Amino acid sequence: MTGRSRTDVDWLAGQLGWRCRDEALLATALTHRSAGGKHNERLEFLGDAVLSFLVAELLYREFPEASEGELSRYRASLVSGESLAEIADGLGFSERLKLGVGELRSGGFRRPSTLADALEAVLGAIYLDGGLEAARGVLEPLYRGRLAGLKTTPLPKDAKTRLQEYLQDRALPLPHYTVESITGEPHEQTFTVRCAIDGDARTAEGSGSSRRRAEQMAAAALFDEFNAREPAQ
Amino acid sequence: MTGRSRTDVDWLAGQLGWRCRDEALLATALTHRSAGGKHNERLEFLGDAVLSFLVAELLYREFPEASEGELSRYRASLVSGESLAEIADGLGFSERLKLGVGELRSGGFRRPSTLADALEAVLGAIYLDGGLEAARGVLEPLYRGRLAGLKTTPLPKDAKTRLQEYLQDRALPLPHYTVESITGEPHEQTFTVRCAIDGDARTAEGSGSSRRRAEQMAAAALFDEFNAREPAQ
Repeated sequence: MTGRSRTDVDWLAGQLGWRCRDEALLATALTHRSAGGKHNERLEFLGDAVLSFLVAELLYREFPEASEGELSRYRASLVSGESLAEIADGLGFSERLKLGVGELRSGGFRRPSTLADALEAVLGAIYLDGGLEAARGVLEPLYRGRLAGLKTTPLPKDAKTRLQEYLQDRALPLPHYTVESITGEPHEQTFTVRCAIDGDARTAEGSGSSRRRAEQMAAAALFDEFNAREPAQ
Repeated sequence: MTGRSRTDVDWLAGQLGWRCRDEALLATALTHRSAGGKHNERLEFLGDAVLSFLVAELLYREFPEASEGELSRYRASLVSGESLAEIADGLGFSERLKLGVGELRSGGFRRPSTLADALEAVLGAIYLDGGLEAARGVLEPLYRGRLAGLKTTPLPKDAKTRLQEYLQDRALPLPHYTVESITGEPHEQTFTVRCAIDGDARTAEGSGSSRRRAEQMAAAALFDEFNAREPAQ
């Protein structure tokens, strides 16, 4: 019963080493929308941005030889909902979450997305409470093991890197990516990108929800195109 | 010819008010991959993260009544490639970019994505050179007008907000979003989410490259489902 009698501030200080001065802010960060009243969605928005930025900076400094594509993939894996839910679960977030009755009954306190969102919201609250240094101080220990893991078992290469290395190995020019079209509302756009290589008639198109994703799809398609024409060895 | 005879450091100080101490870093930030050697893609990764974070914080503070969905859409519009290219163009980035011969010939210095990337890279360089305060000091004036614009002409509502308001108007329970599946490699995943409402058999599915996008799609589908059954007024 110790877990329940402790205040949220004590719990956070014990788990993450930050003693939040603004109790009400921390309470908001731990309140799911279903509970009614002030909830954690705005703090989640802010915390998500703090998290992405701090993880990006950590990767930029820790992997001085990594390409932009590699850094992006590392970050995607580190800030994925799955990773965050795992971290939040390990810190005991499910015991501290405030949920509405319906959510409680359906086990919402164990829902990975709810846990991940609450971790982001708490990070947002820590940022507002103590600034970037406080957030960084909390975050780095949480990611130390995961960063070390990336160094020993790196992610597979992305399509753009694969295509670039393939072309460089054959002393061919680097690919160009041109945005062909952007459709949809500002927040739900679809990008279509064409990938081409100077002096080669073969091109390929890719689509995705961001220019980067569309480029990856186009690179993958062009890589396949090249590989299909090359006899297997 | 003044533009060309000025150093990059002088140009940046004149345009953005930050006198970069690390000349080599600024030169890297202005070097496109096509130029060979050290180029700006890693700095672009870092700068993109700095930008997203600072814009998120600005929105969080400037729009205390906005929902998470609204903040996300505001940010997407402020940091879109189009907005960034427009800003970079206005600052004269095309004159300062270092490109390879092929890129130069094909007008790469006017390509919106190249301009947007270089602006992000320069922001990354300013962050490394002067810390978060330097980056914030450069960014806020660039966005002042755009922020004021958002206040007078807000973006249209997103699907989740529309659905929520529709349900609240009818005193119905709030929707649940459940991740049904996640497929694909870590950096190119497709999320499928189901949206449901307690006590109503109607549900809808949506897919997208992030949980949020999938939720929006599912909300839009369920909203259509509800609306289709309601007689037009």
